[in-house]
Amino acid sequence: MEKINPPGVEICFSPLSYPLFKNGESIVVVIDILRATSAICYAFYNGVEFIIPVGSVEEATAYKSKGYMTAAERHGEIVDGFELGNSPLDYIPERVKGETIVLTTTNGTQAIEISKNAFKVVIGSFLNLDVLSNWLIGQNRNVILLCAGWKNKFNMEDTLFAGAVAEILIKRGNFIADCDSTQAALRLYDLARYDLYDFLKDSSHRKRLARLDLENDIKFCLTLNTAPVIPVISGKNIVKLEE
Amino acid sequence: MEKINPPGVEICFSPLSYPLFKNGESIVVVIDILRATSAICYAFYNGVEFIIPVGSVEEATAYKSKGYMTAAERHGEIVDGFELGNSPLDYIPERVKGETIVLTTTNGTQAIEISKNAFKVVIGSFLNLDVLSNWLIGQNRNVILLCAGWKNKFNMEDTLFAGAVAEILIKRGNFIADCDSTQAALRLYDLARYDLYDFLKDSSHRKRLARLDLENDIKFCLTLNTAPVIPVISGKNIVKLEE
Repeated sequence: MEKINPPGVEICFSPLSYPLFKNGESIVVVIDILRATSAICYAFYNGVEFIIPVGSVEEATAYKSKGYMTAAERHGEIVDGFELGNSPLDYIPERVKGETIVLTTTNGTQAIEISKNAFKVVIGSFLNLDVLSNWLIGQNRNVILLCAGWKNKFNMEDTLFAGAVAEILIKRGNFIADCDSTQAALRLYDLARYDLYDFLKDSSHRKRLARLDLENDIKFCLTLNTAPVIPVISGKNIVKLEE
Repeated sequence: MEKINPPGVEICFSPLSYPLFKNGESIVVVIDILRATSAICYAFYNGVEFIIPVGSVEEATAYKSKGYMTAAERHGEIVDGFELGNSPLDYIPERVKGETIVLTTTNGTQAIEISKNAFKVVIGSFLNLDVLSNWLIGQNRNVILLCAGWKNKFNMEDTLFAGAVAEILIKRGNFIADCDSTQAALRLYDLARYDLYDFLKDSSHRKRLARLDLENDIKFCLTLNTAPVIPVISGKNIVKLEE
């Protein structure tokens, strides 16, 4: 079955649940709003050439010893000895343009790793909401919105973004949403849409990052369409989708 | 650590995620609104003596061959050859008073099975919402609300009930809710509270049961406090909690 009509959109709240959703025919959108996929979108917007996602700090260290620019985040903080973490505000043109960066994060890079057998894997964040959603509509293919969550648990900010994408796919693209997780995400995004930052004030991750004095990062990750590019997995790399 | 103050409430959206939550010190509430835990509550309200939950149809068949009253449901329907399924409306006094019933269902009995190492395991449904919530407040102990879901996926009706319990524990019992799944369930229940049946009209399970002509079952499972009893796991049985 190459194409289907109408396509469906499903939301997977955690990498742990992904085996219940996975198939080789769907497009997977990996979502880790705070902050890995926001940083990846912003890096490509600012001209990074390749991002190599790796699952462990050890792998990142091995690349580092070969001279690669490396980024490693665990529990919200830059791992000692690395140049970059996952703050999107670090991925500015002066630093990343034309570069190859090796990246490992607490949740996001693992979600990329498990989705690799999908038909195609792209990277989503509020920074590329519209361009990504419009591209998905054009593909006319089932979509799985894969939330990276927090250590395999449900998280709110990834769910809100999944709800935002699902709403566009359903309203503008006539996608079908049959699973209850999508219904829930649509309802939650509808409550949150006018002030995402305020809605997330009780969320565990916002509190976690606030303790680390990362309020500006959070606000940036919740701004819409500031990085209208689509990062896509190509072999072991993430590259910018060219159409 | 025998008791803690203030206790916390967490919601686990799927049995698949339960390993991330489980511990030997918490009280687990097993939730399978449509329809296993609703049926269990109604059965105890109507005087059933013991319910023996089993994971597989094969185990239920083995009990049946020994002369037990047996109930088996898969995919919303009574399994061929069994007396009862999981429709609460079948568990009427004339049928169940003083009886022992062996029960297996698609989702609910598996959730009971995996939670057996918790401090205590009780059964929740809208039919026992207030009595259960008040009892939980009196225990002053961490609570895990374990949604049976649908084949390990998130489902809406279990989430709404979990939100309803969490709201009572937080407002009346000063419980703490730190996880995003609880925040989500609280928001969803707040949207749904005035018409649960209508809110669920797009849910996958309501549609599934509507196809089986089970609208009356659904409405019954969404009525509050019609069976004010607390079923509790005791060894291999479910019994009525006596205080």
